[in-house]
Amino acid sequence: MYEDRIRRPALMDKVMTAEQAARLFKNGMTVGMSGFTRAGDAKALPLALVERARQEPLNLTLLTGASLGNDSDGLMANAGVVARRMPFQADAALRRKINSGEVMFIDQHLSETAEQLRSGDLKPVDIAVIEAVAITPDGGIIPTMSLGNSANFAQQAGKIIVEINLSAPLALEGFHDVYIPGARPHRGAIPLLAPWQRMGWTSIPVHPDRIAAIVITDSPDSPSNALPPDDETDAIARHVIAFLEGEVKAGRMGPELRPLQAGIGTIANAVLHGLIDSPFRDMTMYSEVLQDSAIELLDSGQLSMASASSITLSAAMHEKFIRNIEQYRERIVLRPQEISNHPEVVRRLGLIALNTALEFDIYGNVNSTHVGGTHMMNGIGGSGDFARNAQLSMFVTKSVAKDGAISSVVPFAAHVDHTEHDVDVLVTEWGLADLRGLAPRERAPLIIENCAHPDYRPQLRAYYAEALKGGGQTPHVLEQALSWHARYKREGSMLVK
Amino acid sequence: MYEDRIRRPALMDKVMTAEQAARLFKNGMTVGMSGFTRAGDAKALPLALVERARQEPLNLTLLTGASLGNDSDGLMANAGVVARRMPFQADAALRRKINSGEVMFIDQHLSETAEQLRSGDLKPVDIAVIEAVAITPDGGIIPTMSLGNSANFAQQAGKIIVEINLSAPLALEGFHDVYIPGARPHRGAIPLLAPWQRMGWTSIPVHPDRIAAIVITDSPDSPSNALPPDDETDAIARHVIAFLEGEVKAGRMGPELRPLQAGIGTIANAVLHGLIDSPFRDMTMYSEVLQDSAIELLDSGQLSMASASSITLSAAMHEKFIRNIEQYRERIVLRPQEISNHPEVVRRLGLIALNTALEFDIYGNVNSTHVGGTHMMNGIGGSGDFARNAQLSMFVTKSVAKDGAISSVVPFAAHVDHTEHDVDVLVTEWGLADLRGLAPRERAPLIIENCAHPDYRPQLRAYYAEALKGGGQTPHVLEQALSWHARYKREGSMLVK
Repeated sequence: MYEDRIRRPALMDKVMTAEQAARLFKNGMTVGMSGFTRAGDAKALPLALVERARQEPLNLTLLTGASLGNDSDGLMANAGVVARRMPFQADAALRRKINSGEVMFIDQHLSETAEQLRSGDLKPVDIAVIEAVAITPDGGIIPTMSLGNSANFAQQAGKIIVEINLSAPLALEGFHDVYIPGARPHRGAIPLLAPWQRMGWTSIPVHPDRIAAIVITDSPDSPSNALPPDDETDAIARHVIAFLEGEVKAGRMGPELRPLQAGIGTIANAVLHGLIDSPFRDMTMYSEVLQDSAIELLDSGQLSMASASSITLSAAMHEKFIRNIEQYRERIVLRPQEISNHPEVVRRLGLIALNTALEFDIYGNVNSTHVGGTHMMNGIGGSGDFARNAQLSMFVTKSVAKDGAISSVVPFAAHVDHTEHDVDVLVTEWGLADLRGLAPRERAPLIIENCAHPDYRPQLRAYYAEALKGGGQTPHVLEQALSWHARYKREGSMLVK
Repeated sequence: MYEDRIRRPALMDKVMTAEQAARLFKNGMTVGMSGFTRAGDAKALPLALVERARQEPLNLTLLTGASLGNDSDGLMANAGVVARRMPFQADAALRRKINSGEVMFIDQHLSETAEQLRSGDLKPVDIAVIEAVAITPDGGIIPTMSLGNSANFAQQAGKIIVEINLSAPLALEGFHDVYIPGARPHRGAIPLLAPWQRMGWTSIPVHPDRIAAIVITDSPDSPSNALPPDDETDAIARHVIAFLEGEVKAGRMGPELRPLQAGIGTIANAVLHGLIDSPFRDMTMYSEVLQDSAIELLDSGQLSMASASSITLSAAMHEKFIRNIEQYRERIVLRPQEISNHPEVVRRLGLIALNTALEFDIYGNVNSTHVGGTHMMNGIGGSGDFARNAQLSMFVTKSVAKDGAISSVVPFAAHVDHTEHDVDVLVTEWGLADLRGLAPRERAPLIIENCAHPDYRPQLRAYYAEALKGGGQTPHVLEQALSWHARYKREGSMLVK
């Protein structure tokens, strides 16, 4: 049994149930789990840990690549298993625990967690739980649909638990490129000069003695929960494409553009989907996650290849991807998130970065994380890794939320994740503001007139006119700067009636 | 005459007065001038441009390395010569013009200006004005006390004006390492693996035909305006040193620490000065500017070498430096600011970054630039380049300003230049808050109790207690979040009487 999945016979002894493997955990441990944007997460151990926490206290620090699927984050949070969580999450139940202060959430740039572990700035990982397609004869772990921080966790953990997922096709072997930078300060450059380049192993190299348990599972990843494109995301896509056509026309890039990065979620997915009708050819992606749109662009031939840390698809697209997997073998590379998001590589390749804002202010400061300035949505994810170092840093959002009660364009961002220094272009369904080379006083009218919903433009103009009276590089009326958020909380709408 | 300074005889024809050279400029042009933190700035052309603007309209876009000396920025601003300015300044008169909206100031990460010029995201430089020690036989320009963006300006400009400064010793030849990254997306890694490494030329290579004018000057750089250490900066230095001793003890680094970066100004200079009494040995610097303290540490032998983009010294230290210049030849490297501040290199070397905050909030968001949230002080400079990518990102400030009327620790930063994601350690004269691996709710009490002035702690505690009632990852009372700044404006003090 499992000879094709566990290719080192001596490791057969380590096969056990998730319940047995869960006994390796102790209260207070730091655990690193595979999983990035619902892809490649461990399926059995989260549930087994929830069970164990019913019998005895089990408060863990949980690190992952990014968000988990299968409601694992919520189930573990509700069972009290997760006391501390980093670097990202996207689960409704866990979010509640975070915002109530029951779970300490450390919101990090996704490229930095591995570096901080390696530097000793974070407590070391005691146990790594890694979902795998198979284990090689020398003990190498072949990951499934994401790579995330798995290689770093496995390299550092005292014990490794491998979940062999029988539903993950063996054909995934060869998609991964496992490269781990050395310790600082004496390390070399990351030798990646193009999105398609491979520089590492196809499995995570670990000494087989450190594999403490192997658990067999058979359930698939949770499908993507991105919504289909709509009129507004279509409009956003059109503005982005028109802008990029202008860049090509101005000679700043060719019709292959620059390597594309697109954040997780509905809007970024829709914008990429819109590229199918664009004139661009021979594009590449250097991103953190591949959604349905990336596969569509590979199929249409406009995308020649795609590099990322995970593949997160709808159920239908997943089925199609697996059926035709050989078509993608030479065209997709899965990397550790430290590499997919690395500032060194992002700056060198000069990406076009496309990320989603919750809100932005009239000067171009972006809030990606905090609803109303206080409550965590998901986390900053890779948006900072990309926005800071990309050649073109674009942020997209719909101009209003909650049926118009919330304006995504506000006088003052109630939480700042990306400062005006790192934001080149803002886009809503109403239009696009190209902020490159502009001072704050030049940015404000452009953002208000091009991006804000028409219903909110008079209010924004009035705020800016009032602010100008006080002068400054970045004029504000401090007493009113956050009043829109307060009004929404008080009256249910940011709009002045 | 000048044979030792103009070593290509054919260029002797190009020697002219600054007034003659100023006639090359046309209204609306983009001009790139040498100069970084008052070091190596052009001395004659700024004054000649001011003169010319008396006769005819001359509104220029002025790019530099960083701040200029000799009141050049102010004189040019007052004469209307500077219509647009980037990426940094530190002049009182120019600051007034910026804050009144008369000059458009684009505040940039100092590593990014050159990249944006190369990518065509900024309008190209028409004329470069570069202060030089000499011109080599093949037309290479040997810079003076800074390198800044000079090589990039010279590479791109249609015409180059060289100011040969006779007061700059010929012995400066050999201190510079001119390396310019290629255009994206097809460029290699920056081959810098250690602070002392050299990889380029000792002069800026340009075709001699592009040198349109040579102007002879003889006046020195403006001396540094950093203030001497005081009791509070001494206390800050002690906290920093004790913390770094803890890092060594914990095994996270050796007694050579990591390459050090320290921002311009009094506090960073004082902290470095404090290292003279520290147990650390064989340290290196990889910074953007070397101040008096760096020379002191080189002299004491604790610093083995220092890399930066400029040398900005007091008059006495400058005189000593020039007198003993041969002692420093093998121990100082001057680089383009794109390289001294490059995210790729900063991340690879794992720097300890020490920068000055204007204010920070109880969650660790830092304001480096905007007084009262609206009025520009100097600019973000290199602080973002370093803070984002350093292994340890520290921000220092005195806990109060204006005799206690302003608290540097506030509920909500009135302008955010560095987000909580990029800030590891905060230090005031009262103490140090180590924020690594902490969630916002863990950060707030630590920052309040360790860093805030005791007079302001009760107010901060009360704000935080009130904020907690509303919940969230980052609790705030939006109506009160910016009220401290408003109170200062209204009542002259942030302190509630």
